[in-house]
Amino acid sequence: MPTSDWTGRGGTPAAPSQGRFRPLGLREVVLREPGFWGHHQDVNRQASLDHIEHWLTKSGWLGNFTSAPEQRQGREFSDTEVYKFLEALAWEYGRTGDPAIDERFRAIAGQVAAAQQPDGYLNTNFGRTGQPSRYSDLEWGHELYSYGHLIQAAVARARTYGRDELVDVAVRAADHLCDVFGAGGIESVCGHAEVEPALVELYRVTGDPRYLEQARLFIERRGRQTLGDIEFGRAYFQDDLPLRDATVLRGHAVRAMYLSSGAVDVAVETGDPTLLDAVAKQWRTTVARRVYLTGGVGARHQDEAFGDDFVLPPDRAYSETCASVGSVMLAWRLLLAQGDARYADLIERTLFNVIATSPADDGKRFFYTNTLHQRTLGVLPPADEMVPRASSNLRAPWFTVSCCPTNLARTFASLATYLATADDGGIQIHQYAAASLDVTLSDDRHVLLDVDTSYPASGQITIRVRRAPDTPWTLTLRIPPWAAGATISAGGVVQEATPGWISIRHGLDEGDTVFLHLPVEPRLTFPDPRVDAVRGSVAVERGPVVYCAESVDLPAGVSVDALQLDPSQPLTDDGSGAVTASCRILAPIDGDWPYASNPPEPVFDKTTVTLRPYHSWASRGPSTMRVWLPLA
Amino acid sequence: MPTSDWTGRGGTPAAPSQGRFRPLGLREVVLREPGFWGHHQDVNRQASLDHIEHWLTKSGWLGNFTSAPEQRQGREFSDTEVYKFLEALAWEYGRTGDPAIDERFRAIAGQVAAAQQPDGYLNTNFGRTGQPSRYSDLEWGHELYSYGHLIQAAVARARTYGRDELVDVAVRAADHLCDVFGAGGIESVCGHAEVEPALVELYRVTGDPRYLEQARLFIERRGRQTLGDIEFGRAYFQDDLPLRDATVLRGHAVRAMYLSSGAVDVAVETGDPTLLDAVAKQWRTTVARRVYLTGGVGARHQDEAFGDDFVLPPDRAYSETCASVGSVMLAWRLLLAQGDARYADLIERTLFNVIATSPADDGKRFFYTNTLHQRTLGVLPPADEMVPRASSNLRAPWFTVSCCPTNLARTFASLATYLATADDGGIQIHQYAAASLDVTLSDDRHVLLDVDTSYPASGQITIRVRRAPDTPWTLTLRIPPWAAGATISAGGVVQEATPGWISIRHGLDEGDTVFLHLPVEPRLTFPDPRVDAVRGSVAVERGPVVYCAESVDLPAGVSVDALQLDPSQPLTDDGSGAVTASCRILAPIDGDWPYASNPPEPVFDKTTVTLRPYHSWASRGPSTMRVWLPLA
Repeated sequence: MPTSDWTGRGGTPAAPSQGRFRPLGLREVVLREPGFWGHHQDVNRQASLDHIEHWLTKSGWLGNFTSAPEQRQGREFSDTEVYKFLEALAWEYGRTGDPAIDERFRAIAGQVAAAQQPDGYLNTNFGRTGQPSRYSDLEWGHELYSYGHLIQAAVARARTYGRDELVDVAVRAADHLCDVFGAGGIESVCGHAEVEPALVELYRVTGDPRYLEQARLFIERRGRQTLGDIEFGRAYFQDDLPLRDATVLRGHAVRAMYLSSGAVDVAVETGDPTLLDAVAKQWRTTVARRVYLTGGVGARHQDEAFGDDFVLPPDRAYSETCASVGSVMLAWRLLLAQGDARYADLIERTLFNVIATSPADDGKRFFYTNTLHQRTLGVLPPADEMVPRASSNLRAPWFTVSCCPTNLARTFASLATYLATADDGGIQIHQYAAASLDVTLSDDRHVLLDVDTSYPASGQITIRVRRAPDTPWTLTLRIPPWAAGATISAGGVVQEATPGWISIRHGLDEGDTVFLHLPVEPRLTFPDPRVDAVRGSVAVERGPVVYCAESVDLPAGVSVDALQLDPSQPLTDDGSGAVTASCRILAPIDGDWPYASNPPEPVFDKTTVTLRPYHSWASRGPSTMRVWLPLA
Repeated sequence: MPTSDWTGRGGTPAAPSQGRFRPLGLREVVLREPGFWGHHQDVNRQASLDHIEHWLTKSGWLGNFTSAPEQRQGREFSDTEVYKFLEALAWEYGRTGDPAIDERFRAIAGQVAAAQQPDGYLNTNFGRTGQPSRYSDLEWGHELYSYGHLIQAAVARARTYGRDELVDVAVRAADHLCDVFGAGGIESVCGHAEVEPALVELYRVTGDPRYLEQARLFIERRGRQTLGDIEFGRAYFQDDLPLRDATVLRGHAVRAMYLSSGAVDVAVETGDPTLLDAVAKQWRTTVARRVYLTGGVGARHQDEAFGDDFVLPPDRAYSETCASVGSVMLAWRLLLAQGDARYADLIERTLFNVIATSPADDGKRFFYTNTLHQRTLGVLPPADEMVPRASSNLRAPWFTVSCCPTNLARTFASLATYLATADDGGIQIHQYAAASLDVTLSDDRHVLLDVDTSYPASGQITIRVRRAPDTPWTLTLRIPPWAAGATISAGGVVQEATPGWISIRHGLDEGDTVFLHLPVEPRLTFPDPRVDAVRGSVAVERGPVVYCAESVDLPAGVSVDALQLDPSQPLTDDGSGAVTASCRILAPIDGDWPYASNPPEPVFDKTTVTLRPYHSWASRGPSTMRVWLPLA
């Protein structure tokens, strides 16, 4: 029986009924200001939520729920931005219990409810006078995708508040879709996966096995070519191969991540190790061959898709923000199910280098795509203008397809839950941030921990045990793969900690302190020889943070494309987050054909270049930027 | 007065009234079989023309001209495939005078004529019951683009046969469009340039200055944002900047090439050196920064567009066949206008490495895009199936957007005209092929030349003077830029010939022979350090031909992506067109994250690898392939 009442614990985004670790709620793990992630959560709360509501109103996408069909605005999936905003509000309420947030939630939920048809159907783009018929375009219509986000918002509401109007709306919609797409109904799937994980979560909330069965049906149908062919090919929506037969993630990256997340959910709840193993294998192959150094995924602009193995061009990286949200969802589910530290490694990398990169400091502009190499100066879009999704090479306030801002909002509002997990015997800390943990282990044993750190600026993490049971319990810490030389100190004993898990199994009592030291000295990172696009180049990382060179840090008129890094010289950490590197600067070349019979012998100057965290790039105005620097 | 009667000389595709060189007609330069280009022309004649007519019929695109509007099939620009086929037939008739070709032309021209409206409007996709209104979508409707191809077909007809029904149709259409888009009319341009060069050619055929003026208006209006904005940005259709202000070709590559060709035509006929110089400068910058080693252009799949400077990924190269057709059109116009050998250099490179690559040996399948690196084995599309344009990584019989097969057909049928030009004092040979030239210089002086060669297999070219005037005349030969060490021998004197032009100014009489030796030994070619995508790699070329490694030539199970070329070992030419190179083969790596703290130390085997001309790749079945090989 999967249902459990999360409201007292502040809710959590994914709540499997079984697995290696169990998630914690938003009142069990609380981020503190100041801190890298506490600050992001606060900006989301103070600025992004208002910004998003402003644009949902201005764009007409919120008004679509109450206006006439001929006045409908936006793309066919614009309802989902409202749903993801509701989900963000639900987590924010779960975290804070703020009645003002609750009020905003109710007002919007009421508008959504007004648009539901008597039979449960809900979509402002289909089925009314002058609109396309319901389910007439499963390839591109996004109708089940829209249900998915509606249901996820309702699940967040149920877990943070309890059953209310929006939950009832989502249940009616889910019942309707099970009627229409269940056994004997339309034997197909949606062109954009998303309803699959949502239905499993609704099962977890309500206990109604019909939703789990429907999710299972969708997972099993996928890859059997029930959708029509399209110009991008059926791999675009993962309808090329059954999930169990695929070996790697492919096609549209967001679709792939949501689908795989749903497959893990189905596998866990139905007890299907074969399916779980298939997804885990695909994840491993994908991480080994199709992920950017930043954790970003999606190498292609054309179809927002994964490229072939090792095709990871930095300058045409798509690396959509939403794909990283989906990647965190997937890795989190695999981590809960299987307990492999590598899932948390990728989550950390993705959070620091894509999720933290997308929003501007003020929380009112966002990268939709997250390139690793910007060659030309962009033009900052006006603050009141909606722009095409990938047209801007600077952060923009809103997009004609604006999935990323709302996806970030729901992620930041629920971010604390990704920090730690529990099992019967103890607590596992996966991500390091200033936070307080208040966790109940088996037999109602309470553990209270305070984590103090300025990570990733510093690699010093102090964990104070504020309360601990008398009986044995275990504190497990993740040591990131780059942290060779890490040490852990508890009770006066210092020991080396190798990447993976390190557990303190006995003797942590109230008042004890654990000191974890992760060496965050800047380091060089080299690519696999099969990544053609960055051959002969090197990147600089510091702890979990990827660094980059930006033109605003170079002498006037020097392009980042003229830099070559000298790996024989040490990198210097200036203590403020910047790293300096010795570089050569290529003198201008004025050729007439870029291919020659002899290796070019260019002319160079030497200089020292300041590198800064990639996640902060373009925050000082238009610039050129690159992560991978050619080797001198 | 630009008009002149070309019918006796077999017609020519671009006939400027002034310039450094004047073009020759299809009966003045005759390709011979066997020979590299003579063979291509013959396959086009024997197989491709029938293949195209079959698909134009099967697809319904030809039937659109006589069927009811609700039965119309194909994309909004499908009329143009019929027009380009007519153009190909016209050149074929010009070349051969074959009455069967003439008959085919007339039959199709009659169907086209039937669709013309009384006011001259002609487009099967607009303006009839149930269709969008005329000129309601200048951004995407392609209506003027369609006129452009209609007019080019009519120009070919007028130059190879004389004025007839299709010419009258085109004149009526041109008059109509001048009425609608002339001064005081719709002050805009077409989203796809093409009508601009066509209108100048119609002026050259008819002498009516109205067409030249209309082309001039279109050129001057472009770049002034008369078109709406689109997701790809206005650079997509070159409406971002006035032509005179741009510094480089950008946006959709085919559009850019056709537009620039039209601008050269306008500049030449109106005597506008500023405009001509602007285009020439853009061409030079483009060639220095945005052209693949093959001559191909267009680095991006998403919008079929040029990338930024030096962004030339081999594995996601778009390099559309039609863009290379357009590139030859542009370079040819610039060559005629300015006489710089570099224009002919690029034409040669493009012909041998893109135009010759696209068609299969049987002339019934085509590459739409021409990648320089194929990572995965493709699946050959069925012979009776239409496929999305860039979905196949193997040659396909026909595409849902099928611009390339017809564009190749018109190019092959008129190919001989690109071999040589004349001026008052002599003949210039730009491209080497087995051919006969029969040229009239000033004062009615005749020159007959026979060119014998198996170029590019061999670098020996023999030019026999079959007839020559008594008065001085000059034979000028192009020495390609790669041909260091070339020699020329005439009258027993051997001299070195440096890249560029070499002229024999005196003394070539009937019976004399000139021997040109171009060293076509295989050579290594290195990229500019700014081409990030192929850093640390090298290509092999032999004469004008780019070579590649293909998996079918490797030991079983070895991917081309495992190869590294050892540049310290000599390349060997086996005399059959294949080249062997010493390579290392990277042993399989099974990593879990493709980035590491130390430069990877992979394990290698050594082997000898056979490289073959890129233009023949994938002719032995599905394979992986790469042009740029990492350096060992």
